[in-house]
This record gives sequence, structure tokens and C-alpha cells, in this order.
Amino acid sequence: LSGRLAVIGAGAWGTALSLVARRAGSEVVLWARDRDLAREIGSLRENRPYLPGIAVPEAVRVVHDLAETADCDAFLLAVPAQGLRAVARGLAPVAGRDRAIVICAKGIEQASLALMSEVVAETLPGRPIAVLSGPTFAREVAEEKPTAVTLATGDPDLGRSLAAALGSRRFRPYLSDDPLGAQLGGAVKNVIAIACGIVAGRDLGDNARAALIARGLAEVVRLGQAVGGRAETLMGLSGLGDLTLTCTAMQSRNYSLGVALGRGESLAEVLGARRSVAEGVHSASAVTGLAERFQVEMPICRAVDDVVNRDVTIDRAVDDLLRRPFKDELR
Amino acid sequence: LSGRLAVIGAGAWGTALSLVARRAGSEVVLWARDRDLAREIGSLRENRPYLPGIAVPEAVRVVHDLAETADCDAFLLAVPAQGLRAVARGLAPVAGRDRAIVICAKGIEQASLALMSEVVAETLPGRPIAVLSGPTFAREVAEEKPTAVTLATGDPDLGRSLAAALGSRRFRPYLSDDPLGAQLGGAVKNVIAIACGIVAGRDLGDNARAALIARGLAEVVRLGQAVGGRAETLMGLSGLGDLTLTCTAMQSRNYSLGVALGRGESLAEVLGARRSVAEGVHSASAVTGLAERFQVEMPICRAVDDVVNRDVTIDRAVDDLLRRPFKDELR
Repeated sequence: LSGRLAVIGAGAWGTALSLVARRAGSEVVLWARDRDLAREIGSLRENRPYLPGIAVPEAVRVVHDLAETADCDAFLLAVPAQGLRAVARGLAPVAGRDRAIVICAKGIEQASLALMSEVVAETLPGRPIAVLSGPTFAREVAEEKPTAVTLATGDPDLGRSLAAALGSRRFRPYLSDDPLGAQLGGAVKNVIAIACGIVAGRDLGDNARAALIARGLAEVVRLGQAVGGRAETLMGLSGLGDLTLTCTAMQSRNYSLGVALGRGESLAEVLGARRSVAEGVHSASAVTGLAERFQVEMPICRAVDDVVNRDVTIDRAVDDLLRRPFKDELR
Repeated sequence: LSGRLAVIGAGAWGTALSLVARRAGSEVVLWARDRDLAREIGSLRENRPYLPGIAVPEAVRVVHDLAETADCDAFLLAVPAQGLRAVARGLAPVAGRDRAIVICAKGIEQASLALMSEVVAETLPGRPIAVLSGPTFAREVAEEKPTAVTLATGDPDLGRSLAAALGSRRFRPYLSDDPLGAQLGGAVKNVIAIACGIVAGRDLGDNARAALIARGLAEVVRLGQAVGGRAETLMGLSGLGDLTLTCTAMQSRNYSLGVALGRGESLAEVLGARRSVAEGVHSASAVTGLAERFQVEMPICRAVDDVVNRDVTIDRAVDDLLRRPFKDELR
């Protein structure tokens, strides 16, 4: 890498990543889908709607035309999972086959049940792929609070180059050669977070929440192995780390959705009071869809899907979970 | 098992376990080291000093003389780690070689660096051993909040018998055949909890705490494998589950000790204001001792040991952790 990076997507996460790359000494172009937002960030040097109060240095070039990213060596995709395919299609004529694609989006494409790496392989065939994932509240990253992430790619040279282009004392990439496994944690965590929120809202205790996190990770591991990832990856920053963050911080929209449901509010009430739907509501059906495809048992994710998408009552869902037979921990 | 159990130790955890066994339909004898406490629980039907407000049913027989437990089939050891050897010696003439010993204590013996199972193997040779461990605040267990634990033994028949003798809808044992691995999580978690508290007290953010939990689990796994346990066990309730509980709940003495240190209080100030020393202070030196013996790298535990036992400043310790080179996640 010559050290010129494009960050595709100017939400909170994309903006924070552009700062990360800049701090590591890389040249950075930040692409915003919205022309007005690109102009505003460029002139105000602040992303007011998504990351207010954080200065975006002049050295971060903000653009709206994808063609202006054509001289970059690596493209960090920081767009929502459901929008990744359209953006990747737009990138195809811009990003040559020798350019690296770094997946920084978390989730499963609902319509196809495809992982983000599968979407990229279809829309940007032949490009080397890496996955960056971990416990990363964007604001904390922007504020230079210490953060560690998994950086996973099948190409060790690319991994080292990207670690150098992004890493600093306060943003620490740990290398992995398992990009499939590194995507699963981020895709499932929001579903488990809703379950943990329900347990907290129902006042079922910290023991139960900790058990849900551990048994939830076991579900993530099973699904991760089924899609070709490795258990060890899911035990790391992208799996356990992100799961813990999402399941214990009230900052998480999915966790707080669960808390409201646990306290007895209806899904319609909770969603009606919000501007954005918690990602976990969609993820729940995608994850259970994948679980069915691969014949993997995921009772916690299924219970959440039952509650948020199938009108099952919470008492019934909790009851189902507690009624399961005692069995071996590793199954 | 005929279904008669002895719980050895009448602290909060032992008392809660006696209720668990009773709810599962087992006959229970609860042994208290302190004669007055045994008498008080027996007459008040409440363990006022350790578990106030929880009724102890008449069906739980409370004794002070170990000989009165001689007709039990299984002995649940719920005494502090540093006191286990003495109690186990006292049990030797009482518990025949066909009686099962269930280790419910968490920790490493400081003087010898022995695991609890090693202490039991030396003091009660020949008895079948099981380990019960997981995310278990005693009060929540006593209040019948849902709790799941790892129950690990090399003898599958014993595992099933114990699961039947202890399990209920609200207390769910998951079976494992890895008693060595099942002990490690509980032994190391308090050290990682101090680190997480320091990060919270220093206001270093949720990303950093989640990273510490994930990288901390990696340390637990490395040590667990070195002593002969399996990585999968550490990913379960006794490892990750207990670690998450201890690292995210202010109820944990070790976490709150870390928070105070992170805010700038000195160890002397913090410990001076407390009745009991947080277990993690002792565990830190035991764990780093074990890590040295087995040549395992445990930088987080070492940093905590440096702070609480070697007068290293917190800024220096955090700095050392952040200065480590970028490397592979699995090392």
C-alpha cells in the first residue's frame, strides 16, 4: 500500500475510521453518499448529524463522487449492511482488481442471507478482501479512547500493510487469517443484545444475562463454524469483544430495545418512539434464516426472532428457553 | 447418588447451594465452620451475616460437626480457596472413597499455586471429582433468578447424577468433561475484573473494557490450555460467563476496587476503607506465578499484579499495555 485510503460511508463509523487512518499517517479520502453532507463536512470540518463535536482535520478530503477515490489503494466500506451491495456496484468501475477492499460494515444481507464478504466477492470480484471488526463505539474511537479490533484477511502481507496504515497506540489492530469468522460476531451480536436487554428489563438478574452472553457466544460459534469460520476467531475481539460491548452498554440501541420490551412495552410502542429501527430486529430473521440453512441450533436467536417478528410473548419465550433439557455445554 | 448432599461452608454461596439442592428435591446437610453461625441458621432459618432476608427451609439440616455429614453421597465444597485444604483434611475421615467431591470454590492456593482439584486430589485421594462453576451471584441464585453453570467431571454418570440432584428450571447445569478447564475462569476472572475497573475509573471507555475482556479471555485460555484444560471450556459459562459477570457488575468487589484505583485512590486508601480484601489482589500474584511456571504470556494479569502488588503506577501500566506491538490475535 502506498498509504492512500478511501473510507466509503460518512456515518459515525466511517468518519471515525477516517480519523483513525489519518492519525496513523495515511492519506484519506472520505466519501459521503449524500452530496450536502459531503459539502458540510468539508466546510465545517465536523460531521454534525453523525459525530457532532469531533473535528475532522483538513487533511481528510471529503468527496461525494466515487471517481475521486480512484487513486486509492484500499477501500474501507463503512456503509450499512443492507446498502453495501449498491455501493459496491458503484465502486466496481473505480476500484481496480489490485485494490484491497476492507469490510467495516456488520450484518447479513437480508434478501440473500449473504455475508458482507459474499456481497463483495460478487460485486467486486477478484479484489483482495479484509474484514475489520471489533468492539468499536464510533464516538470513543473518534475521541481516541483505546480500541482494539480484529483485522482479518487471507493475505498476510495485506494484513500487515493495513495494520500499519490504520494502527496507532490508541487503535490497535490484531491480525487474523479468518475473514469469515470475523464477520459472524458483528452479524449476530445485536440479536443477543436484545435478549440481554429483555432479561435486564424483566429483572431476571446479572447471572442470567452473563449466561445469555456465554450461551449466545456458543450460538455464534456454531454458526461461524458452519459458514467456514473458526471458533477461536469468535472468542476474540470481533466475536466475544463486540458481543460483550453490545450486551452490556445502555448506549446500544438493541440492548435498550430489549430493556423496553422486557419492561412490558410493546414492540410497536418502542419502535414508534424511535427514529431508527434497531438493527437486531432485522438481524433476528436473517440469523435464524442462516441457522436454518446450515441446520444450526440457535435457541436464543430464535427466541428473539419469535418475540420481535412472530408475536410470541416474552414470558412464553423465556419459559421456552428455561424449559430446555440439561445437556452438554459444548452442544 | 441416593440424593443426600452435604454443602461444606455456610457463606453466601454455600447457603445458596443448599437451597438449590433442596429445590431439586435432594436431602441437604449444610455445614458451617462456625458453631454459633450453624446454631443461628438452624434456629432463625436465615443466614443473617451472609445472606440476609433469604429463608432457609427446615429441610436443610445445619450442622457444625463434620461427622454429621458422613452419610452423604456427595460433598459440595463451598469454602474460600485459601481455606479449602484445611477443610478437605477434616473431611478425609468422614467422606469415604466412593463419595463424590464437588468443587464449588474458585481460586488458586497461593502458597502452592495449586488448583482446587489438585488440593482435593492430595487431601481426599481417590474420590471422584466434579467442578461446579459459572456466573453465580449467590443472592440471585438464592432468589431463584435464572442461573446456568458448568458442571465438569471426567465421570459422565456422576455428571448426570449431580445434574439431577442440583438442576431445576431456574438452576441449569451444563455438563462438561473438562474439570481442569472449568476451574481456570473462576481463578483468573477477579484479576481481569480489576483491570476492567481501572479502565472504567480512568474513563478510558467501553471499547477498551470490551477489548480487555476479550484479550483477558485469551489469557485465561492460554493458561487453561497450559494446565491441561480445553479452550472450548473457557469459552463457556465457567470462563467467559463468569468473566463477563465479574467485569461488568459493580456488585463485584474486584471491579469496584479497580474503579477506585482508576479514579486515583491509592491501594492503601481503598483497602483501608474495606472490611475484606478483594480476592483479585491475591489472585494477581498467584496467576502471574502460574503463568511464569507454565511460560504463558499474560500481559493484562501482569499489569494488574504490577499495580496492586508492585507499586507500578496505573498510567505506567496502561501505557505498557498500549505500547505492545501489533500482532496476531491468537497469540
